[in-house]
Amino acid sequence: MELSAIYEPVRKDLATVEDRLKSVSKVDLPALSELLDYSLQGGGKRIRPIMALLSGKSYDYNRRNLLSLAMAVELMHLATLVHDDTIDSSPVRWGRPTVNELWGTEQAVLLGDYLFAKAGDFAAATGNLRVIRHFSQTLMIISSGELAQAYSAFNLEQTRKNYLQRITRKTASLFTMATESGAVLSMAPEESTEILRDYGQNLGIAFQIVDDILDFSGTEEELGKPIGSDLAQGTFTLPAMVFLERYPEDNPVKRLFDDEDNKEENIRLAVESIRNSPIIEECFGIASRYSERACDKLKFLPNNTVRQSLIDLADYIITRRK
Amino acid sequence: MELSAIYEPVRKDLATVEDRLKSVSKVDLPALSELLDYSLQGGGKRIRPIMALLSGKSYDYNRRNLLSLAMAVELMHLATLVHDDTIDSSPVRWGRPTVNELWGTEQAVLLGDYLFAKAGDFAAATGNLRVIRHFSQTLMIISSGELAQAYSAFNLEQTRKNYLQRITRKTASLFTMATESGAVLSMAPEESTEILRDYGQNLGIAFQIVDDILDFSGTEEELGKPIGSDLAQGTFTLPAMVFLERYPEDNPVKRLFDDEDNKEENIRLAVESIRNSPIIEECFGIASRYSERACDKLKFLPNNTVRQSLIDLADYIITRRK
Repeated sequence: MELSAIYEPVRKDLATVEDRLKSVSKVDLPALSELLDYSLQGGGKRIRPIMALLSGKSYDYNRRNLLSLAMAVELMHLATLVHDDTIDSSPVRWGRPTVNELWGTEQAVLLGDYLFAKAGDFAAATGNLRVIRHFSQTLMIISSGELAQAYSAFNLEQTRKNYLQRITRKTASLFTMATESGAVLSMAPEESTEILRDYGQNLGIAFQIVDDILDFSGTEEELGKPIGSDLAQGTFTLPAMVFLERYPEDNPVKRLFDDEDNKEENIRLAVESIRNSPIIEECFGIASRYSERACDKLKFLPNNTVRQSLIDLADYIITRRK
Repeated sequence: MELSAIYEPVRKDLATVEDRLKSVSKVDLPALSELLDYSLQGGGKRIRPIMALLSGKSYDYNRRNLLSLAMAVELMHLATLVHDDTIDSSPVRWGRPTVNELWGTEQAVLLGDYLFAKAGDFAAATGNLRVIRHFSQTLMIISSGELAQAYSAFNLEQTRKNYLQRITRKTASLFTMATESGAVLSMAPEESTEILRDYGQNLGIAFQIVDDILDFSGTEEELGKPIGSDLAQGTFTLPAMVFLERYPEDNPVKRLFDDEDNKEENIRLAVESIRNSPIIEECFGIASRYSERACDKLKFLPNNTVRQSLIDLADYIITRRK
């Protein structure tokens, strides 16, 4: 199913989000304006605002506040991308040069800071203290998750449990923020808020597992960035873990993490071995289980088009190829 | 007057702030805990929380909320320092290696992000939407001010007006946040809030001018970092501007900004010329005028020890030598 068909119930709101993202760039400082324009119109799929809007529309929402939440989650996401690309020195995202590549580290760090602040400003504009608190705590979780990832780079002593903890922090926390806060802003009953919260968390985990799979199985054209970039950064993701479990001896991932020699060759070998093995399907299976778990309790939500979209979105997340 | 005598009316609260800064480091992730410990116990003077506490105590304050504000402003300040040092590749602050020097860019960027988030969490804990909104908008102003500074580096086409705008954004905005929000949290009448707001802004400008003077007139031992570091970064500050106004021809600042050759020598020459000239006194005079302007309307606030401390603090800011 196409993403655009899934977000049909919130199409208008999403268009408003796009307009507001454009107006974020309208600032006095031309240098900042240019950076914002570039970073906000990159080619993101707007999954997080879609989730916030769909979750919020399950109950009695205030459109203005819900749109502020959608802006907050998307801007926080874009801010983390700008900083991630900077610290990884990534040259390409969405098939075009990154901010750090074009403008350098200094501008990229400051742009990310500005985007975090702007995201916080939209969170504050929801006027809901629970949402505001959740917002800042999510950013704490994400940045500490990224730190944990940086700390564990090129370390093979990581279990699947470590991996799940890491992606729960780094990715699923913002999905959780989007769905739980959407529910909170729409005055959902507490049980429904919890259901939407769990939906966001499980779907966030599924999303990141698929991202990590695509880094092996995708094409550079689809992904808009080089294949194998996680390995190049020393990030030990699920497919590589399963690969090492299967072939613990003489494994290119092991060789890669053990020393810097033949880096390119070991990455190429690892990617080729994994993408042509049943590991890809196995990992998709794990992602599917999280996606199913996400939908487990949606039946207790009101039966309407929004609920169907949440179900379709869960399916989209694990079938997407980019 | 010693700073410790000035903050006497809020001594206990400031001690609580110190304790809470220590407990910020108590997190599950050992790597993060270590970074936090190091960055929070550096040797800052805690000027911003002192200002927030003093401003808040002018009226009917809620101690818990006021302490949250004091934490928020100090953590935001420390976060900006971590990112500033990172983008400037500064090796030393407070007489010891910076976070970026010891742990590298990646950890420093993520630590700064975490500190911004933690600061936002304390801002949210004030429970006051006006304060929360002011917080995120202040971070927008600071980061765009830093971007403007980065953009204008090594550019001599800057006027004193540009300089004042720049430091108002980059430094005075957080001072303003501290005093205005302190007033808001203590239910001060709107006129008093405005007086405390202006106090913060003018004192912030005075503070930054003095910082910029000390970068020429101080000693490395007092400042805990090398003299002339602004020039080394291409940051055109008031003393250098006045120096260039006086000697527009064949000036080491001009030579420095025009080309990279003899960088060290030109910095040394500029620092020596400025520190042994009446320019230092002239700039202190300008700082004093902002400090006086800060106190202009304090007479309309309740006459108590807190008000006297605000006056003494304004004096301290322009007489300090580190």
